[in-house]
Amino acid sequence: MSSIFTKIINREIPAHIIAEDDRFISFLDINPLVHGHSLVVPKIEVDYIFDLDDQTLGDLNVFSKKVAKAIEKSVKCIRIGVAVIGVEVPHTHIHLVPLNTMDDINFSRPKLSPTQVELAAMAEKISANLT
Amino acid sequence: MSSIFTKIINREIPAHIIAEDDRFISFLDINPLVHGHSLVVPKIEVDYIFDLDDQTLGDLNVFSKKVAKAIEKSVKCIRIGVAVIGVEVPHTHIHLVPLNTMDDINFSRPKLSPTQVELAAMAEKISANLT
Repeated sequence: MSSIFTKIINREIPAHIIAEDDRFISFLDINPLVHGHSLVVPKIEVDYIFDLDDQTLGDLNVFSKKVAKAIEKSVKCIRIGVAVIGVEVPHTHIHLVPLNTMDDINFSRPKLSPTQVELAAMAEKISANLT
Repeated sequence: MSSIFTKIINREIPAHIIAEDDRFISFLDINPLVHGHSLVVPKIEVDYIFDLDDQTLGDLNVFSKKVAKAIEKSVKCIRIGVAVIGVEVPHTHIHLVPLNTMDDINFSRPKLSPTQVELAAMAEKISANLT
C-alpha cells in the first residue's frame, strides 16, 4: 500500500505543497510544532533515510536547504532546525522547524492545529519566497 | 575564537573520535541522550547548516550515513534519528541518535553521563563497524 506521502505526491490526498521537482516534494505539516513547520520528502518511497542512495540523500538535503531559506523569509525565527525521526510514517521525511528556542523542536510538546485557510496562506507565503 | 569543535578537530581538546576524513569528523556526544549518540561536524567552521555550500551539505549527509550505519551495528536500536538544532555551539553539527522510541531524541530529557572509559569503548566499537 502506498504511504500517505506517496498519496500526497500522486494527488490522491490534498496537502499544502510548498515546493516540488521530479525527485522531491515539500509540504506543510498539518499538525506543526510551530507555524511554518514543513516536511521534505523524496518521491521514491524508502522508509529509512539512511537507506537512500548517496546521491538522493545528498540532493534531498540540498532541496531542504532551498525550502529552509524560504521558511526563514516567511516566519520569524532565528534559524531552521532539522529532525528525522521516522518511526510513524514509513517514508523518509525531514522535518524543518523554525526555531526561536531549542524547545520549538521538542516533539513531545502539544502540536498546533492551524485551520486549512491558515495552512494555505502559509504555504503560499513560503512558496513565494523560494528562490 | 575557534569553536569547541574546531579545537577538537585541531586536537587542542580531546574527544572520542569515531570517523574522520579531510572535510568531516564524527565523535561521541559526551552528554548523550542515549548511548551511542554521536555528532557529525564539517571541518569548515560554519555556524548554520543551511549556510554550507550545496556540495559540502550533501557530502556531510553522506558522511553521516556511513557513521549512522556503524552506530546501528554497535548499539541496539530500531534506527538512527537525526537532529540539527545548533543554538548552543556556533559550528554546524548533526546529532545522530540511536532510537528505540521517538522520545529517545527528545532534547529536553536528562542527558546521560558515561565515564571516559565507557565513551572510549563505545567510540572504538562504532569505529570498528565503519565500512
